[in-house]
Amino acid sequence: MERSGYTTHPQDLDAVFAALADPTRRAILSRLAAGEASVNEIARPFAISQPAVSRHLKVLERAGLIERDIDRQRRPARLRAEPMAAAVRWLEEFRELWSSSFDQLENLLDELKKAAAKGAEHE
Amino acid sequence: MERSGYTTHPQDLDAVFAALADPTRRAILSRLAAGEASVNEIARPFAISQPAVSRHLKVLERAGLIERDIDRQRRPARLRAEPMAAAVRWLEEFRELWSSSFDQLENLLDELKKAAAKGAEHE
Repeated sequence: MERSGYTTHPQDLDAVFAALADPTRRAILSRLAAGEASVNEIARPFAISQPAVSRHLKVLERAGLIERDIDRQRRPARLRAEPMAAAVRWLEEFRELWSSSFDQLENLLDELKKAAAKGAEHE
Repeated sequence: MERSGYTTHPQDLDAVFAALADPTRRAILSRLAAGEASVNEIARPFAISQPAVSRHLKVLERAGLIERDIDRQRRPARLRAEPMAAAVRWLEEFRELWSSSFDQLENLLDELKKAAAKGAEHE
């Protein structure tokens, strides 16, 4: 995929948000936040079949949110940060546009800042 | 829609992310960040018809991202913060899960914190 610095093509962002628009895919991403996992391991806590999980993984892979090892037998999936960062960035830019006239998202940002400060304390 | 405090139903989040998965809808949201606007006003800068804009507005309205005045002739659309906040919150919770093992999103959060601090200075 062509990328220049922090630029993300709109179609990439389309794929990221579309991939996030499903509760099972969001749950799979949360599972992978704990570390790489095979289809088998990912499918275990869900009430869906391995082929169904594989289909969700393909959507996540096409959106660039995960990558999978081709040369290892388990083909573990792991998270990739950049596309998720692009989604956060869009929301952040939107907040900046909006915050000049509304303060509801400001309150949310305060929460984010508090969470960030708390996170920094733990480092 | 049933809501209790900060809880957002997964299907609401599905609709928000699905609504964000389109460049025209994201552009419409950015336009509305500057203030309420009628279909006519929203359609002007886009190379698409008013009926096409109306269809996008319906998707945004169903996701709860905008509301429209029924009793005014122009039926202006305006942004609603809560569903967008729910999307930001999901991404934030995901980041917290992930940041324990990866530092790529930490870098992004640093940017967010800087942007937040910059925003606070301007207040």
